[in-house]
Amino acid sequence: MFSSAIVPPTKSQRTRAHIRDVALVSFRERGYDATTIRLIAQEAGVSVGTTNYHFSSKNHLVQELYLDVQNAHREAAAPLLAASGDLVHRIGIVYRCGLDQLSAYHPFAPEFLSAAVSPRSPINPLSDESAPALAIVEGLFREAVDGASAALPAEFRDGFPHALVLAHLLLALFWVYDRSPGQKRTHALLERGLRLLRLALPLTRLPLLRKPLRELLDLVADVKA
Amino acid sequence: MFSSAIVPPTKSQRTRAHIRDVALVSFRERGYDATTIRLIAQEAGVSVGTTNYHFSSKNHLVQELYLDVQNAHREAAAPLLAASGDLVHRIGIVYRCGLDQLSAYHPFAPEFLSAAVSPRSPINPLSDESAPALAIVEGLFREAVDGASAALPAEFRDGFPHALVLAHLLLALFWVYDRSPGQKRTHALLERGLRLLRLALPLTRLPLLRKPLRELLDLVADVKA
Repeated sequence: MFSSAIVPPTKSQRTRAHIRDVALVSFRERGYDATTIRLIAQEAGVSVGTTNYHFSSKNHLVQELYLDVQNAHREAAAPLLAASGDLVHRIGIVYRCGLDQLSAYHPFAPEFLSAAVSPRSPINPLSDESAPALAIVEGLFREAVDGASAALPAEFRDGFPHALVLAHLLLALFWVYDRSPGQKRTHALLERGLRLLRLALPLTRLPLLRKPLRELLDLVADVKA
Repeated sequence: MFSSAIVPPTKSQRTRAHIRDVALVSFRERGYDATTIRLIAQEAGVSVGTTNYHFSSKNHLVQELYLDVQNAHREAAAPLLAASGDLVHRIGIVYRCGLDQLSAYHPFAPEFLSAAVSPRSPINPLSDESAPALAIVEGLFREAVDGASAALPAEFRDGFPHALVLAHLLLALFWVYDRSPGQKRTHALLERGLRLLRLALPLTRLPLLRKPLRELLDLVADVKA
């Protein structure tokens, strides 16, 4: 494994990366429906056979898009997380950076949603194929929770990031439907949710509320499974 | 208007009702994708032109399906609601009867979802075209809340049915993904949600919780608008 970073990529690896880059630009500029393997091959200057050798379907390229978006999400959030200890502020950073990464795709969001929403779709965000991209999001929320200066009660710390990921998927669903300029209604909903979270967090220490809150996190864990 | 109930339907009204009935059977047996205007016309023994005269697209027939499902939902729930005064029990009746009406369509749920989920789709449950069917559901939840023997605090009574409708749409989304026999995971999730509601209801009277709860209902109202 040592020195792997300085081994130059093979020709095959370069071709793969080039096809991938062309596809990501196409998804961003043309959307899901109008992007085809034939078009990508043409723009990448390779044959359809070569494209299929590296990516056996358009949906495999969508998975590359998901990874690209979530890696950019992580890179945008990391320096901001390093600078804040406040739990609600940290959670807000992860949500806001996530929405920012999506914004370029908003014109095509309905067609991505139609293609991705079926439980049979390999580009469904909850499918096995999408698990690596979703794991990046979950890791970010876990880092936001675990790295806060005032920790949550231990009994909630494990389940809470799951609930935040589910809320992130629902927020993204709302965002698809949001036709306001710059999707400002989605941003307003997020800020409202964060204010509510700040109001609700001290309540997690009330003995009377511990059971309902644990039950709520258990219910959310059921939704994700 | 008087005596309208005994005026026999015109030939045109009978043709319309017949086409509609044939389409509803087709949606139930073939699903969304395989049901076409051509096939419905053929099975109804009328021309494609006659079918298009009464229903200008397949999606207009889906609206008839929505109304049929929600009218059956109301008919199933009404006698049960009349027999119970307990708020959580009444809410459970509306959810359970709603799931029961959907169960025949589960094999085709992914294709209905793909067709309906886009914000541009006229069969999206939140579209203007679907408003009459959704109003039936909201009316049922409002009746469940307003007719309970122990009333909710007044400040929550208006917003709560909205929140229940939103939860119903999310439960239906979970149900589409539920591959367990008889969708028993959806039913288990519902029962868990109802237990949580029973646990949480007394808390609506705690002064400390009123503001977060009002904020939560305001947030939900934002989601629906």
